[in-house]
Amino acid sequence: MKLGILGGGQLGRMLALAAHPLGIETLVIDPKERCPAGDVTEHVSAAYDDPAAIARLAEFADVVTYEFENVPVATTEALAKHAPVRPTVSALAMSSDRLTEKRALNALGVETAPFVAVDDEASLKAAVAELGLPSILKTRRFGYDGKGQWLLREPSDVAAVGPIDRPMILEGFVPFRRELSVIGVRAVDGTFDAYPLPDNRHESGVLVASRAPAEVDANTTARAHEIARLLAEDLDYVGVFAVELFDTPGGLVANEVAPRVHNSGHWTIEGAETSQFENHVRAVMGLPLGSCAARGVCEMRNFLGEMPPTEAILAVPGAHLHDYAKAPKPGRKIAHVTVTAEDEATLDARLAKLP
Amino acid sequence: MKLGILGGGQLGRMLALAAHPLGIETLVIDPKERCPAGDVTEHVSAAYDDPAAIARLAEFADVVTYEFENVPVATTEALAKHAPVRPTVSALAMSSDRLTEKRALNALGVETAPFVAVDDEASLKAAVAELGLPSILKTRRFGYDGKGQWLLREPSDVAAVGPIDRPMILEGFVPFRRELSVIGVRAVDGTFDAYPLPDNRHESGVLVASRAPAEVDANTTARAHEIARLLAEDLDYVGVFAVELFDTPGGLVANEVAPRVHNSGHWTIEGAETSQFENHVRAVMGLPLGSCAARGVCEMRNFLGEMPPTEAILAVPGAHLHDYAKAPKPGRKIAHVTVTAEDEATLDARLAKLP
Repeated sequence: MKLGILGGGQLGRMLALAAHPLGIETLVIDPKERCPAGDVTEHVSAAYDDPAAIARLAEFADVVTYEFENVPVATTEALAKHAPVRPTVSALAMSSDRLTEKRALNALGVETAPFVAVDDEASLKAAVAELGLPSILKTRRFGYDGKGQWLLREPSDVAAVGPIDRPMILEGFVPFRRELSVIGVRAVDGTFDAYPLPDNRHESGVLVASRAPAEVDANTTARAHEIARLLAEDLDYVGVFAVELFDTPGGLVANEVAPRVHNSGHWTIEGAETSQFENHVRAVMGLPLGSCAARGVCEMRNFLGEMPPTEAILAVPGAHLHDYAKAPKPGRKIAHVTVTAEDEATLDARLAKLP
Repeated sequence: MKLGILGGGQLGRMLALAAHPLGIETLVIDPKERCPAGDVTEHVSAAYDDPAAIARLAEFADVVTYEFENVPVATTEALAKHAPVRPTVSALAMSSDRLTEKRALNALGVETAPFVAVDDEASLKAAVAELGLPSILKTRRFGYDGKGQWLLREPSDVAAVGPIDRPMILEGFVPFRRELSVIGVRAVDGTFDAYPLPDNRHESGVLVASRAPAEVDANTTARAHEIARLLAEDLDYVGVFAVELFDTPGGLVANEVAPRVHNSGHWTIEGAETSQFENHVRAVMGLPLGSCAARGVCEMRNFLGEMPPTEAILAVPGAHLHDYAKAPKPGRKIAHVTVTAEDEATLDARLAKLP
């Protein structure tokens, strides 16, 4: 069986690494000349709308998937004539627009931050009047890792926003105790499963650590899994996806949906029976899902910008390194490490040794 | 860092898959046009003594290793002028000849089957007289998976052997309760570690299953680890290696040494903290070793010749498939599956579901 992957960053790389042991060949398209996936699978360097590359992938693939949500619709539509594209274009469309996404979640009974669409200065003013401050102004499309977001604390911040040149959304501020996420997976036959929840730490809008399983009560896990299942069934979703959640005194509030393998699920490579990457591959290829159960406890940490020496990381007991073979650059996610242990105390002692 | 690998079979494939997450690029030489490692790393299709291929690998690699023990000595010597070859040629030499290997083991106080060198019909006759029947006649070099071996049960078997055209060895028969093995690993700085012992089942001389950790007493594990450590230190060995052991009423008897990652260590991918493949890469690259501790219990099973449908394998809870992307052929090792569980009873129930 053959899997075509749009996008050759670290997610495409880890998808390819998970596909090979299952006997599944992979081919990646990525515009870069060198990309992280290029070391571990065949890579076609071309734009995502390049007709020759699309034809090549269409000929190669039994199934097509992607590592990011902003794939040109024309590309997925062209590919869909030759092979199933999973998840589907319509599933992507929902989450590629924050307004559509929040409306869809609310329609399923899933709470989100209060929100108002913002299209110009007048509607921004009206939105601020409705939601109050602080609130967060976000572009409706193409935001990630805190990009395309402005925290508005005071009226002067609102005045400083300047002209609204793109469709945006204003979100009310949600006071939360911590950030969780749920990584769900749904098979072609509709089977659904989800991982134990990770407890995520962000800095400047970027995920820096996920500890799993989070210490949560059974109700919280059950509700998070229900949210993921409702969404997956509504979209007839196939593959792995993530929902970022705020844990608030009033219950779980959905923040954002990512229709793909997710950084807050990287811990599953060593910390779960089956990794999110293998389960995504199993799901999109029409294979049975693997168990999402945790194995011990673990914490995943991202390395941003640059990495300590490999020797120092690997000297930590239970440390499992995942280097993405990317050039160092301030703020860039270039690797992650997952430290595993049998219990929380041992895990903390090991984490303290990380460089 | 860059690792050159001689041999692109399933062992080279799994070494490359383990190297990538550590940020180590790999290049494989294998004479075949398509080889299992070729899907997951750059592959040069050339004979092992091809000067251009050797030059290419020498230019590429910071360290060179191999997946099999019969590398031409001229090749490793040529490569050693440019980069460390690990394990060393001298370590290879010991185990490439059954006679040298058994003498080296005995010199370290490690028991082996009784043995006599056989060079012609006369010495075979004398050897049979000394060791009695049944006994096993083996070629001194290039044997694997039971090839190059003849079980001599009766005098008529001896007469049927025919002309002795290669250096051989006659080994006395060792009655054993079961077959174990020890997978050891030694770092550049001399740090040594070894995995819990697997309990191995063979059919017609070919490994078909390894269950780990074997149910053995602490003394047996300690002695097996000591055997591995003595051997590694004697050879100043760097990397992973295996010693096949017979568990006999009189204690452990060493059968065979494999100076490389070994089929009876494949269970470590999911069944141990660090796989034998990652630990071999860590060792030869001069990195700290990872823990050899077991995670739960597991059984590895080889698929020989052909494979059941992937769907049927992956439907078994805890099943982790490793397909080598090889063409089916009677008797050929084309894949393995490792089934993991928290306890022996669950493991047995899961194994019973394997197709």
